[in-house]
Parts: sequence; structure tokens; C-alpha cells
Amino acid sequence: MNLPVPSLDPAISSRLRHTAEGLVPVVVQQHGSGEVLMLAWVDDEALARTLATGRATYWSRSRREYWVKGETSGHTQEVKEVRLDCDGDTLLFVVDQVDGACHTGDRTCFDADLVHRFDG
Amino acid sequence: MNLPVPSLDPAISSRLRHTAEGLVPVVVQQHGSGEVLMLAWVDDEALARTLATGRATYWSRSRREYWVKGETSGHTQEVKEVRLDCDGDTLLFVVDQVDGACHTGDRTCFDADLVHRFDG
Repeated sequence: MNLPVPSLDPAISSRLRHTAEGLVPVVVQQHGSGEVLMLAWVDDEALARTLATGRATYWSRSRREYWVKGETSGHTQEVKEVRLDCDGDTLLFVVDQVDGACHTGDRTCFDADLVHRFDG
Repeated sequence: MNLPVPSLDPAISSRLRHTAEGLVPVVVQQHGSGEVLMLAWVDDEALARTLATGRATYWSRSRREYWVKGETSGHTQEVKEVRLDCDGDTLLFVVDQVDGACHTGDRTCFDADLVHRFDG
């Protein structure tokens, strides 16, 4: 069965400033706690799929395919809010993350590697 | 007077996965509250300047110049932590933001534009 592919509202698409590859970075943040979970990328179709389903859906730049977060791991992201920044070139997804966001099992993709902490 | 330009520790640089333009995106988060303030970009020199000074310093892709956040507005970012994500292609700066991070005067660059809120 072929499901219809959702298309992005042109009024939203026209407000996005895409990269040359047609992508927009997405900061993904846990609802409530404010944790920054990860950075991912969407094209218009991934954003349309996210808006249609409420499940965070990204474009994998390495695999060159759509990727419903948690589809294989079960570590899904239920999207609460989608926000766009002041110059239209970055999205913010506020989500409810099931278990860890990181493929390593960590809660966030930024947990493991502290480059520098300033004193005071 | 020419100040010496700090260079980035090669052990750090080698862990970064830069874009073709030599850049890495930086998610900027308020210390304590967890607010996502903005997304910016650094090259190795901007990151070295940030680590040397404790003042968040970015590469402006539009102006093609280094940019000490708040240098003209006074809305500086004192950096508390620098983190790198699991695949080395995104940085997280945890900062103490003076006043608003956004050039519009808003606290964050994501305050003004709610694209969608899901019910429930």
C-alpha cells in the first residue's frame, strides 16, 4: 500500500531558508527539562511528515533517506512544538523523548564529550 | 596592536567533522534554565577564540567575519561549557546570556515563530 506523501504547506516552506541541499537544521529539545537532545536535518517533506504524524522525522544526510526517529530502536520523539528562528534558517522541535536520544544509549548526543568547562 | 590569534588544539580540531566550508554548527543554550537561545556557526579559529576568552565567538556566514556575540549590543554570552556531540558534527555552548540573545530583542531566536503546537 502506498501511503500519500504529505506535502509541506507552501506558506511554511516559503519562510524557511534552506541550505543549497534543501535542508534546514533542527535543534531537538526535551519538553519540560529543556535538555538539548540532538541536532538533525529536515527537508520540506521530512517536516511535512513530522507535522502530519507528530513523530519526529528527519532526513539522514549519510544514508540519504527519511528517518522516523526511534522507528527501529523504539526511542521515538513525540513532537509537542515546532518553532522557527528569527531568520528562518533553524527549526526547534520540542519533543517528548522515549529513553535515550543518542544511538550510544546516552540520554542526549552531548552527554559524553565535554570539550571544556570554564571555572567559576 | 596585533593580538596573537589563538589556534585550536589539533586534538580538538581532529575530532570535529566540519562542513565543506570548514564550519561546525553550535547550539547555544542558557545555563540553568536550559533555554535554546540560538544556532550559530564556528570555524576552528572562532572555537579557539571562544576557548581562549570565554566569550562566545562565531563565524558570520552572511558577513564573512568573526563575531563576538554582544560586542556591539552588550548582549554577551559568557561560556560555561563546550560540548561535542556523538558524531563530532555539532557543538553545544552552555552560556550565561546577558539580556536577549536575539537581534529582535527577544530572549531567544525561537520565541516569535511558533509553526505548530500539537494538542495534548
